[in-house]
Amino acid sequence: MSHRIIIGIAGGSGSGKTTLAENIASHFGERVALLRHDDYYKSKSGLTIEERSKMNYDHPDAFDTALLLSHLDSLKAGDSIECPIYDYTVHDRSDKTRHVDSASVIILEGILIFENKMLLDRLDMKIFVDTDADVRIVRRIMRDVKQRGRSLDSIIDQYLSTVKPMHEAFVEPSKKNADVIIPEGGKNPVAYGLIIDRIEAHLASL
Amino acid sequence: MSHRIIIGIAGGSGSGKTTLAENIASHFGERVALLRHDDYYKSKSGLTIEERSKMNYDHPDAFDTALLLSHLDSLKAGDSIECPIYDYTVHDRSDKTRHVDSASVIILEGILIFENKMLLDRLDMKIFVDTDADVRIVRRIMRDVKQRGRSLDSIIDQYLSTVKPMHEAFVEPSKKNADVIIPEGGKNPVAYGLIIDRIEAHLASL
Repeated sequence: MSHRIIIGIAGGSGSGKTTLAENIASHFGERVALLRHDDYYKSKSGLTIEERSKMNYDHPDAFDTALLLSHLDSLKAGDSIECPIYDYTVHDRSDKTRHVDSASVIILEGILIFENKMLLDRLDMKIFVDTDADVRIVRRIMRDVKQRGRSLDSIIDQYLSTVKPMHEAFVEPSKKNADVIIPEGGKNPVAYGLIIDRIEAHLASL
Repeated sequence: MSHRIIIGIAGGSGSGKTTLAENIASHFGERVALLRHDDYYKSKSGLTIEERSKMNYDHPDAFDTALLLSHLDSLKAGDSIECPIYDYTVHDRSDKTRHVDSASVIILEGILIFENKMLLDRLDMKIFVDTDADVRIVRRIMRDVKQRGRSLDSIIDQYLSTVKPMHEAFVEPSKKNADVIIPEGGKNPVAYGLIIDRIEAHLASL
């Protein structure tokens, strides 16, 4: 299976990791399959919407990592998967899925993917996008106010009550597991070039 | 001049930056020219050996950075240079030089190269090798005891009096200027592969 590689891109909320992962994926098109840990939030159909809205979405237990692991193994073996689609409006997994074909390069993106030993074992390259906490919260505020119509109070309350403590407890320590640390993910052309060249070299070697 | 690139590799004492720089240079042979900031310690012929031995070698002012800048510009323009050779036994520049031919890739290695704006402006890629302070002092003790025959007392005295405070004042803040941060320089095969592939891609584009 060594002709398929899995690249992990982790980093805190607002770090720029999603932009980096999407830029790489769109550069290579169908030669790259992109998975997001966020799509694997646990199904919560037994709970009320109110209960769901109060859960801690920044803790490792919020994710159905077992399903993600089996999907990674399927892609690595050359099989396609049906990736869950999470519905943020009701805080639950929707009944729709996204068909993902296997590819020579599989990118996994998520805040907590370097925190889990079984995920780490599957990653051939571990990239941590590192951005100062003040820049990250500013980006998060802008995104949630402008794109999601949330109030400043609710964004900051969630940030201080779960996002920040979970970052310090799980995300920041997991940086230790990275092979390479990239400041300012989406706005770092030199680091982007390094990763693109590495993937090009891998694809050329197939 | 854009067909010659300059790559900077910085990091604290004992970080593994020298091993990384030397591994890259030996991988590419004459296609890479390697310069070390340490070779550009200022000439101190006006001082006694005792005065020289007590100087702070971890401060930016210890270096003849003007000479290094002119040498970088010469290499970038395709000219060869005569690199100074520093004699650590007398803490002064020796009267010998090392002839360095220009190359497609010029690597500059040093603790403080990301601290100087004029050096930064010349670097096409800035790699910071980041290793925990406890690992760095352990490596420094091993090197200085085994290879340089120094006493434990003198190593630790120098570390606490200049190496550590200068690291915190100049080296650590300069990490902000890096394009990419590499944990454990000489012992990180994934990051090494990224850099090798980037340089290969550059050489192939010429």
